[in-house]
Amino acid sequence: MEEAKGTVKHVVLAKFKDDITPEQIQELIKGYASLVNLIPSMKSFHWGTDVSAENLHQGFTHVFESTFESTEAVAEYVAHPNHVEYANLLLPTLEKVIIVDYKPSTVNF
Amino acid sequence: MEEAKGTVKHVVLAKFKDDITPEQIQELIKGYASLVNLIPSMKSFHWGTDVSAENLHQGFTHVFESTFESTEAVAEYVAHPNHVEYANLLLPTLEKVIIVDYKPSTVNF
Repeated sequence: MEEAKGTVKHVVLAKFKDDITPEQIQELIKGYASLVNLIPSMKSFHWGTDVSAENLHQGFTHVFESTFESTEAVAEYVAHPNHVEYANLLLPTLEKVIIVDYKPSTVNF
Repeated sequence: MEEAKGTVKHVVLAKFKDDITPEQIQELIKGYASLVNLIPSMKSFHWGTDVSAENLHQGFTHVFESTFESTEAVAEYVAHPNHVEYANLLLPTLEKVIIVDYKPSTVNF
């Protein structure tokens, strides 16, 4: 395994509010994915629904993972007008959300 | 971007209890990483500390990401004696934890 130096993963765990329809969720995910084409500092986007069986998901149902080349690149993304516009659409549809950024590393103590 | 067919990402968000020392955390992370060599169905392991600036991390400080080739492979891992032994060491040291599994996909509605 090699260490991905510099890469920052931006991970969003989300649970949509009960009154948000599957069609609305689909549109919101498309909108999230479209940011890759609008914001140069965002390098990739993947998403998925929770398929865990351990019952430690605490109600979160969706994972969105995007990658950046540095924490500065994440900051550029967060401040980018297209992200701000999108976040203002997405956040009100969520019952709960957690967002963490981390630099994936193998163990090198 | 290509879709990673079949791959399942197993994502653990954790916050250690206040009385767990940095040395203990380091040993626990080493122990987590060592599972890759003990459990055949676990294909890779990366970790990192939260470096986000948006203040939506809800107190979580560590991310552990491992990959598997299927949900069945995750189930094998969860039931594996080395995982059970490790989970019994790790879980009591955590103030809170969320575990989600997802199949990373690009948008293909």
